[in-house]
Amino acid sequence: MELRVCEIITSLVFLFLATSSLGQSAPKNGKSISAIRAVLDAQAAAWNRGDIEGYMDGYDRSPDTVFVSGDRVTRSWQTVLERYKKTYDTREKMGKLTFSDVEITMLSKDAAIVLGRWHLQRSKDEPHGRFTLLFRKTKAGWRIVHDHTSSA
Amino acid sequence: MELRVCEIITSLVFLFLATSSLGQSAPKNGKSISAIRAVLDAQAAAWNRGDIEGYMDGYDRSPDTVFVSGDRVTRSWQTVLERYKKTYDTREKMGKLTFSDVEITMLSKDAAIVLGRWHLQRSKDEPHGRFTLLFRKTKAGWRIVHDHTSSA
Repeated sequence: MELRVCEIITSLVFLFLATSSLGQSAPKNGKSISAIRAVLDAQAAAWNRGDIEGYMDGYDRSPDTVFVSGDRVTRSWQTVLERYKKTYDTREKMGKLTFSDVEITMLSKDAAIVLGRWHLQRSKDEPHGRFTLLFRKTKAGWRIVHDHTSSA
Repeated sequence: MELRVCEIITSLVFLFLATSSLGQSAPKNGKSISAIRAVLDAQAAAWNRGDIEGYMDGYDRSPDTVFVSGDRVTRSWQTVLERYKKTYDTREKMGKLTFSDVEITMLSKDAAIVLGRWHLQRSKDEPHGRFTLLFRKTKAGWRIVHDHTSSA
């Protein structure tokens, strides 16, 4: 009987280790990195078909979502959406968005930081710069909870 | 004998839980937050006595430390130091640094993201803006590994 209890406890230990961060393997990191990259690809694709709401799918639909640019902090998914809609109210202003030099660093099994370049190809200018994104794994999948964007 | 083994395993489970992220308590978060705040306070104090090396103590002394500003990425502690020394080569240029509206969010037991304002009081101008910092808990204590700074 005692041996039986012992086996159950041992099994639980292994189950816990397997699902905990200590048991997190490189392939699992690889899966998270691919999922984050897919979110960024989907954002660029949405932007380039003029779909700002689709682009905003990459952000966590939370009042805590933060967008930082220059000296300005915009809080909440809804307000970030409104800011984008106001700043980019024509397809010409939206231009063609490209992300490049994307570096994804896993911080834990549910957090990652992403550094990259953004570039807008437009008829009259080509604004560009860098972004630092904090992704969290939410119920909806990997989503941006904090975006700090700067331009040249 | 079997009961003894069982007790040892049970003890190990509790020890593991106590030291794992699942066992991380609010007071421990509070301790990390205080430690991070102390690093920022020490940075501002060092800056305001003209000590750029002291200021740089807040950053991880690693080739992977990243400083992002505008469209520029500076990599490695040494290069970030050189950039600061070049940009702020007089006490007048350094001015008086203040950090404010500092929000520290723990991401795991060894990672935190910090959003805040920076402000330089100088005789001729007052540059200011926002920063997003990623802190990691290193052997030397909490240190900045990624800094994205923007200005008004």
